[in-house]
Amino acid sequence: MAKSADIYYKIHPWKIIEEGFRKEYAMVSESVFSLGNEYMGTRGNFEEGYSGDSLTGNYFNGIYEAADLEKSSYKGMIDKTEFIVNSANWLYTRIQADNEIVDLYTCKFKDYVRILDLKKGILTRSYIWVLENGKEIKLEFERFLSMKDAEIAAQKITLTPLNFSGDIILYSGIDFGLIHHMTGKNMWNIAGSTADNDSISMLGDTISTDQSVLVSCRFQVDCREWSDIEEEKKLVRRFVLSGEQGKSIEFIKIIRNLTRKDIKEEEKENFKTKWGKNQEVLHSLSYQKLREDTINWWKRTWQDSDIVIEGDGLNQQGIRFCIFQMHQTYHGADKGTIIGAKGLTGEAYSGNTFWDTEAYCLPFYIFNNTEAARHLLEFRYLTLEEAMERAKTLDCKGAFYPIATITGRECCSLWQHASLQLQASTAVAYGFWHYENITEDEEFIFENGLSILIEVSRMLASRGDWNKDRTRYGFYGVMGPDEFQMMVNNNCYTNYLGKKTIEYTLSVLKRYSNKNPDGYEKIIKKHCLLAEEIEEFHNIAKHMYIPYQEETGIFEQHEGYFNLPHVDIDKIPIEEFPLYHHWTYDRIYRNDMLKQPDVLMMMLLYNSDFTKEQLKSNYEYYEPRCIHESSLSPSVHSILASQLQKEEEAYKFFGFATRMDLDNYNRNTGEGLHTTSIAAAWMNIVYGFGGMRSDGKLLSFAPSLPKEWEGYAFKIHFKGDILRFKVDKENIKISSKAGLGIQILVYGKPYILGQDEINIPVIL
Amino acid sequence: MAKSADIYYKIHPWKIIEEGFRKEYAMVSESVFSLGNEYMGTRGNFEEGYSGDSLTGNYFNGIYEAADLEKSSYKGMIDKTEFIVNSANWLYTRIQADNEIVDLYTCKFKDYVRILDLKKGILTRSYIWVLENGKEIKLEFERFLSMKDAEIAAQKITLTPLNFSGDIILYSGIDFGLIHHMTGKNMWNIAGSTADNDSISMLGDTISTDQSVLVSCRFQVDCREWSDIEEEKKLVRRFVLSGEQGKSIEFIKIIRNLTRKDIKEEEKENFKTKWGKNQEVLHSLSYQKLREDTINWWKRTWQDSDIVIEGDGLNQQGIRFCIFQMHQTYHGADKGTIIGAKGLTGEAYSGNTFWDTEAYCLPFYIFNNTEAARHLLEFRYLTLEEAMERAKTLDCKGAFYPIATITGRECCSLWQHASLQLQASTAVAYGFWHYENITEDEEFIFENGLSILIEVSRMLASRGDWNKDRTRYGFYGVMGPDEFQMMVNNNCYTNYLGKKTIEYTLSVLKRYSNKNPDGYEKIIKKHCLLAEEIEEFHNIAKHMYIPYQEETGIFEQHEGYFNLPHVDIDKIPIEEFPLYHHWTYDRIYRNDMLKQPDVLMMMLLYNSDFTKEQLKSNYEYYEPRCIHESSLSPSVHSILASQLQKEEEAYKFFGFATRMDLDNYNRNTGEGLHTTSIAAAWMNIVYGFGGMRSDGKLLSFAPSLPKEWEGYAFKIHFKGDILRFKVDKENIKISSKAGLGIQILVYGKPYILGQDEINIPVIL
Repeated sequence: MAKSADIYYKIHPWKIIEEGFRKEYAMVSESVFSLGNEYMGTRGNFEEGYSGDSLTGNYFNGIYEAADLEKSSYKGMIDKTEFIVNSANWLYTRIQADNEIVDLYTCKFKDYVRILDLKKGILTRSYIWVLENGKEIKLEFERFLSMKDAEIAAQKITLTPLNFSGDIILYSGIDFGLIHHMTGKNMWNIAGSTADNDSISMLGDTISTDQSVLVSCRFQVDCREWSDIEEEKKLVRRFVLSGEQGKSIEFIKIIRNLTRKDIKEEEKENFKTKWGKNQEVLHSLSYQKLREDTINWWKRTWQDSDIVIEGDGLNQQGIRFCIFQMHQTYHGADKGTIIGAKGLTGEAYSGNTFWDTEAYCLPFYIFNNTEAARHLLEFRYLTLEEAMERAKTLDCKGAFYPIATITGRECCSLWQHASLQLQASTAVAYGFWHYENITEDEEFIFENGLSILIEVSRMLASRGDWNKDRTRYGFYGVMGPDEFQMMVNNNCYTNYLGKKTIEYTLSVLKRYSNKNPDGYEKIIKKHCLLAEEIEEFHNIAKHMYIPYQEETGIFEQHEGYFNLPHVDIDKIPIEEFPLYHHWTYDRIYRNDMLKQPDVLMMMLLYNSDFTKEQLKSNYEYYEPRCIHESSLSPSVHSILASQLQKEEEAYKFFGFATRMDLDNYNRNTGEGLHTTSIAAAWMNIVYGFGGMRSDGKLLSFAPSLPKEWEGYAFKIHFKGDILRFKVDKENIKISSKAGLGIQILVYGKPYILGQDEINIPVIL
Repeated sequence: MAKSADIYYKIHPWKIIEEGFRKEYAMVSESVFSLGNEYMGTRGNFEEGYSGDSLTGNYFNGIYEAADLEKSSYKGMIDKTEFIVNSANWLYTRIQADNEIVDLYTCKFKDYVRILDLKKGILTRSYIWVLENGKEIKLEFERFLSMKDAEIAAQKITLTPLNFSGDIILYSGIDFGLIHHMTGKNMWNIAGSTADNDSISMLGDTISTDQSVLVSCRFQVDCREWSDIEEEKKLVRRFVLSGEQGKSIEFIKIIRNLTRKDIKEEEKENFKTKWGKNQEVLHSLSYQKLREDTINWWKRTWQDSDIVIEGDGLNQQGIRFCIFQMHQTYHGADKGTIIGAKGLTGEAYSGNTFWDTEAYCLPFYIFNNTEAARHLLEFRYLTLEEAMERAKTLDCKGAFYPIATITGRECCSLWQHASLQLQASTAVAYGFWHYENITEDEEFIFENGLSILIEVSRMLASRGDWNKDRTRYGFYGVMGPDEFQMMVNNNCYTNYLGKKTIEYTLSVLKRYSNKNPDGYEKIIKKHCLLAEEIEEFHNIAKHMYIPYQEETGIFEQHEGYFNLPHVDIDKIPIEEFPLYHHWTYDRIYRNDMLKQPDVLMMMLLYNSDFTKEQLKSNYEYYEPRCIHESSLSPSVHSILASQLQKEEEAYKFFGFATRMDLDNYNRNTGEGLHTTSIAAAWMNIVYGFGGMRSDGKLLSFAPSLPKEWEGYAFKIHFKGDILRFKVDKENIKISSKAGLGIQILVYGKPYILGQDEINIPVIL
């Protein structure tokens, strides 16, 4: 792994601190200091403007634009793609004194400090602006997004003239004129704007997808005079503030952002008339109250979600940053929202969501916020129709879930990925299965999962093939999780997940027919599911071919993989990374090198299906062939290394899991945070060092303690209770918040979690 | 094969005759009535204008334009492509009488007939134009391209007012304003034009590639008055002709087209000043003399190239059409010219040349026009540098020949083909080997072939891989000739051709070092060829893995092919063809279906390496899996079926070989002729029914006679002699033009061809 840490922020258990501003970190910091509340996200931009490298980014979950692609003469290629749009900058600010406008890229300043308080969800920044003429103004910025009412955000600016008295001009407004980074275009038409004594509003419509964003702001400030300036796609209020030496002027802006996706014409009219109501709502809000509510929201959240690491300040800070980002990105407030690959912190990967959602993010929510987990799965239910459309395009029956999507439609323009990767579909089924296994929420599966399971199984039964004598079923022409094997037959992961998906479908069908024969009849009818089809599901699951070498216990990644030429990855010169940029495209695909876990991913997801000996053989075979070019790869290896008591390796692979973005390991944090890797960091601690396994009948744990740590503690939401684990060099202390008497396994032995704390000696 | 004949033209042994004009055949006829002389080509457009479906096409060999492609973030993808441009319409004509302009799409006409005289190379057309007012004018058109001086073309129009006397206006000129079909753009800037009493000139430059075409025309006509009209990119002379009832007016236009590719600035000035000289040249030419010269050229050509089929008028006409097209497209006049997939008859496949040149076209030239064969190979020598550049881009050493090209640079934008198909490179080596095997022209190989062989072998030694214990060498991640297996390992054809290429390289190196040690040292030095490298060539050739099943004698098309799901191609509904349009792209790649011969292609090229039993097993295994979606496929199967005495199958696959375009089998003849299929039709008769094999030490024959025929005869240029074969229901008569005593094999027995005709009973 050709990566190295670049430690820039101060270490603190609860805060990300930037002391002194370095321009080369401007964009990385914009990502790191992003705020989000699932509904919207705003990058840590300097609201007062900054003329250096910057991506002023403001995003709404599910607000997207579309682009037509060159039409392919081949069938199954997409001809349209969708991507998140950069919307209005509702924090737009400029500060002027003596004809100078503050700009940290060009002006003089001192005592710069920026702090993201993870405990409270508040971002603050302050510095002293030194004007050309020697005048000094202390500027303090505070902002947060309401976690209670997701449409609300708030900003406070405190201006203190330190060595003079005189006017300071403050501009504050709404700017829809931002450029979408990838296309270099602005994506908004302005449908109208209003202004009154203390507030302004602007309504923007996306250019081609006909979605709307209405931004309204209310200002609170003591000013001598104000006036409005309306430019193209921008509405700004100019405040003249009478500065008095040593006295602070407080400027407050409360923002309400309304969005409508897939809005109908008549609704749009209503939407416009809401301006008035909007103002009313804004007037009812108090900055202090909003701030307290948000701090309280985070307080409650941390109480039940925190991970403590003792003796390792870097990872302590890192893991809290990760947990903070997970809650910011998604907490299940809305069923239609998604987790983009960069959350709401940038435009890379087009704001699309991937199978990472079910494979990497869902466990976090299952064990921290069950409702959020359910809503994530419901997104797939809501987009079943699109997946069925996509299956048709690909000459399949049933539902083929997209590799990359915002609305449920496939957005990945690389056919190799979009047409050959079945893991989005099987991950959806896995997600439902995993959710049910933990929550036992059978009703949800019957109502939301079963339709999906039937249609995904149907797809699997049409996409695969029988071998010539019908003794083996398998998938041909697929790309498994390891994207360095582009188009292979009988990929072990794909076949295994296919088998598990169909088996789970059959199990749910059977249970439903027992428990609710009427409901069962209805759904069978709705999906025109014939008895022969169910029979074929049984056949396929039974005869699914899983390439496996009996002598060695090694699963073959795909048919023929063992015959591929070997590449000694340690001999690849470091300057050839990332390989996609330095090796010709097809060369990457012609050997036994892996980009990311494939067989090992299967062995993590269905861990209890395999013996430890099998895991050991496969780990020791595949890990040395893997270059971990995917940011998700190291955590999976770390978790399995822990299971195999390979402590050093486990800790090595954990290495940058929690701090990938804080330390800009991949040199691309400036484009946005690696949100799904952040989820893997959580898994890395709970599944890795905590040794949790959630695929068996009982939740099981096998904690170990990295020798670099004094101890660690984590919490798990489980069946209405919260289980608390505290591991130190001697003991594992396990307690339950509600004491519901939940049974778990620790090191393979059963324990009941009642009122009393359980104390088990740790196996180091 | 979902194809059917659509017989539209009259059957005639030497002519293509269109009696009566049907609009739906307009574009097909434009292709069929194309004229070409290697240097330039002109479609059979109605020169007087036609407002219906039409592609007015005039092409020069090697005059191309370029387009930038979207830059890929992956390495090895091309970012620029080159394509043939539609140049000036130098036949531009309009005919007007009483304010009506003739246009066969809209006007009334009768007695229409168009004839392409294959024996003479002359295209004529005539009809009676009936004006709205009842006036009738007989119009007769004649045109030809000079086969003696390729820059010259000539046109004659005879106008006869049948039932009136009065003015007829004739416009004749040069039109650079044509649209390139694929891009929808005109590709020409006009650099200047001149006109004098009886001639006009216009110089056009391609927009981005800075190539030039200078068109000059001289007119001969009795006219009352004339004037010039210059419009954008068009210069036209208007002639007022005094028509007299029953009297014919003859209008003659002699055209000289000069082109300069890759022209330098200073040369360009000279080029412009050539206008004057151009006029001089034009004045020295006589229509009648040009016509005679061309007819004589064709007379000589037919003497030594004709194929006679007795008792089958359709195929007699068809095969002569094919031979005519081969000579039109290419006869080795220039070393830098190529054979585009559509010759010079259309813009499909961008005018690019493919590996079809060496695999399908070269045999025709080797046995009809040795110099042309040599020039075809020299094109690869002239573009070795580009192939070496391409190899570098693909992380290979040596030379990687392009899949599709005009200038030697890769033009194929589908990476699956451009990066994975090695058969362009091995076909070049095969071409040199085949040429040497027949001509014994060792000098040419030493001078032009060896450099290529070294660099192609080098590429093969870097592109392939050893297996883990270094017992097998092979190519991974390739697409063999069968394009329905997109990316496979150890494709039998690719490995075998790789082995043969390296073996041939080693043989040439050895012979050269014996015969010319100094020259050998020089070339070794020039290519920095080390002894270890030669050693590695030996190793690779020796250990090349050829997938083969001993029990059945079947070569496996690639590693794992035998395990692919089976598709019963007879059960694919006819409306699903062509599959590329009806099946999702990846679905085509997931089974054992073949698009075209792969293992069988190998067995044709190196026929004597395999036993008849092997051929039989492989033919019977692979043919039923092949859908023949490539137009080159049926002839290969027909040739091998003949060898296996499968007469009915041989004749079935021969079915449309000679008439693919005349009968518009693929429904796309309108886009241009299938030039390389035309070459395969010649092979189909000579290698198929004639049973010729040219890969052994002696040229061998095993003639058979399809029961549908009375007899057939063909000629072979061989070692300075011309061998004549005449096969009827009883005998094979073989004679030699020069009686040089050449030894051949017939049915495996040796014969010496002296002055006397040999008579051998035919084996039916």
